[in-house]
Amino acid sequence: MPFKNIMTPALILDRAALQRNLDAMHLRMKSHGVALRPHLKTAKSAEIAKYAVAGQAGGITVSTLAEAEYFLDHGFRDILYAVGILPARLDRVAALAKAGADIKIITDSVETARQISERNSSDSTIFQLLIEIDSGEGRAGVLPDGPEFMEIAKIADTAPNMALAGVLTHAGHSYNARTIEEIRAVAEQERSKITGAAQRLRDAGLPCPIVSAGSTPTAVHAQNLEGVTEMRPGVFVFNDLKQLSIGACARENLALSVLASVIGHNRHKGHILLDTGALALSKDISAHDEHPEVGYGEVCDAESLESLNGLFVAAVSQEHGIVPVGDDTVFDRLPIGTQVRILPNHACITAAGYAHYDVLENGRITAQWDRVNGW
Amino acid sequence: MPFKNIMTPALILDRAALQRNLDAMHLRMKSHGVALRPHLKTAKSAEIAKYAVAGQAGGITVSTLAEAEYFLDHGFRDILYAVGILPARLDRVAALAKAGADIKIITDSVETARQISERNSSDSTIFQLLIEIDSGEGRAGVLPDGPEFMEIAKIADTAPNMALAGVLTHAGHSYNARTIEEIRAVAEQERSKITGAAQRLRDAGLPCPIVSAGSTPTAVHAQNLEGVTEMRPGVFVFNDLKQLSIGACARENLALSVLASVIGHNRHKGHILLDTGALALSKDISAHDEHPEVGYGEVCDAESLESLNGLFVAAVSQEHGIVPVGDDTVFDRLPIGTQVRILPNHACITAAGYAHYDVLENGRITAQWDRVNGW
Repeated sequence: MPFKNIMTPALILDRAALQRNLDAMHLRMKSHGVALRPHLKTAKSAEIAKYAVAGQAGGITVSTLAEAEYFLDHGFRDILYAVGILPARLDRVAALAKAGADIKIITDSVETARQISERNSSDSTIFQLLIEIDSGEGRAGVLPDGPEFMEIAKIADTAPNMALAGVLTHAGHSYNARTIEEIRAVAEQERSKITGAAQRLRDAGLPCPIVSAGSTPTAVHAQNLEGVTEMRPGVFVFNDLKQLSIGACARENLALSVLASVIGHNRHKGHILLDTGALALSKDISAHDEHPEVGYGEVCDAESLESLNGLFVAAVSQEHGIVPVGDDTVFDRLPIGTQVRILPNHACITAAGYAHYDVLENGRITAQWDRVNGW
Repeated sequence: MPFKNIMTPALILDRAALQRNLDAMHLRMKSHGVALRPHLKTAKSAEIAKYAVAGQAGGITVSTLAEAEYFLDHGFRDILYAVGILPARLDRVAALAKAGADIKIITDSVETARQISERNSSDSTIFQLLIEIDSGEGRAGVLPDGPEFMEIAKIADTAPNMALAGVLTHAGHSYNARTIEEIRAVAEQERSKITGAAQRLRDAGLPCPIVSAGSTPTAVHAQNLEGVTEMRPGVFVFNDLKQLSIGACARENLALSVLASVIGHNRHKGHILLDTGALALSKDISAHDEHPEVGYGEVCDAESLESLNGLFVAAVSQEHGIVPVGDDTVFDRLPIGTQVRILPNHACITAAGYAHYDVLENGRITAQWDRVNGW
């Protein structure tokens, strides 16, 4: 189907760019001798997951139990649920395990570990637990040299219904880096903290089969991953203006865009209106740290994805995107009905507004791939 | 079902507050002698629509054709699609008309009006067109005293497949008001511009049955709506921190909140983690213009919806909300697993992340009402 027959707004996935991104990450992980456990919070799609794990160990990462259930339904068994587990969610995890999932959960809480160990249930689920470490991001995770870390490990190692599966960290502060050198420094910090935690377990005679790290910037730029067993980048499958702005990808790696239509010309205010507002683009403006001039998204030619005269979405309301035009000739070049593509700031958040991808190959839409939204 | 059995994140709709909001708006419109045509871009729910039009003329406003199709399926016939029409969407509008919808479309473009008039189709649809006017917001709409306005009117009046149904405006700049006096001034500006446009048509011997205006702030605070035939507020059904901050509602009118669970305690950084991140709350921070201290949402007691010690979500990643705590006693008062409710900045955008509402009545969840997302 040609673009012009696609109803806008639509979420366009460039199949060739997706493959470039996957190939590059597969090659990187192979060169490090590290397993790729892609974080599917970004793609939320079984079709994309299939390509992301092709030739890999097969494990995946998810951010919701809805994703875990969906991916298990699609044949993915080795699943790491990488958001701190709530005791109230253990029944749902147990149901996944019973249905055949090799599911791993994480915590950074002694109290939660204790509640897991004290779970009273007729099912015989063994909960495989990774301990979440703070390697410098400061969001979640215990300090790897603190007392809580060893307390959680001992509970997981001794409780009959638990197995200590390893350690996990996420160097999300790599997103704040301004240069590749800074990303490399964060990657080394991530590596040294997580391998240090693993060593601490082993020194105490405890098991640590999994040493899990990774964000897209650190997976792309790490120079040394010794001691890490797997990396969990997510947004690398698509990339976005944020990743571009911090040097974690090149422009040819931008696989995700939003197809928009020009729905209005406001000549007295000097702007074009698109049908991509806050719901179609999201209100994420992550790339502003480096490039405030991209607004809510960069406006590109629908076919070539080349920037259109530096146009960008300066403001959004629910279903309107406002694109200021420098000169009135833009109105003639972009008549009402013209399709353009918008590059988003943050692919994970923008994609969440859509039920499916329209897959672009050789200038045509050749498939629709579904997504699993919600929780 | 009690709260504690609800899986979080969940979108909670307080049935009593919803009814208060509907009753108050019904009373206001009645006192003005103006029809309410609620903008269902906010609620996107047939169940809510049913209560919103109870005792009213019955017309509704939508922001997407997906909404139009959904509401027609649920028995709503008088539908105004209040985003500038694209000629490429006329077939879908015609299909709605054929299926029984009394559907009205809008434009602010002479070229679009011409394309509608030149539509070549075997169906015999008569497109009912309202001309969109800029009453000061500066987003969309022609100037009511400009030449394009009369050009569009003449095309719509003379084309065999069109009917000039009236004029429409949206005073979205009421959201920028800082005081009720300012909102009143915007409301009067909205009224005078749209009734002036209607008069211009009538002076030229053209019909103008519908004179449509409205945003929530102007619908709430307008002192005079003479000459306006209908108002189209949307967010008034729920309200939010933005409406509260500009004085368009009181706290008892906040009908929408997000049920969250505490999933982590980060004692070394001094914050609590919630399972409501960017996807559960959205990245909308509209209320910051007046109240930057609400962050991505105000943290409230799950039962009473009273503010919890001024706690707020200061940062979000995809599935994490970070709530700084002033003192460590908060960790003891809010153990992991505690449910809290978050008041969002902008109800329309936050609600779009959910497939349904959990309806709260007398402290219990008594129903789930669906939503129509997407386009």
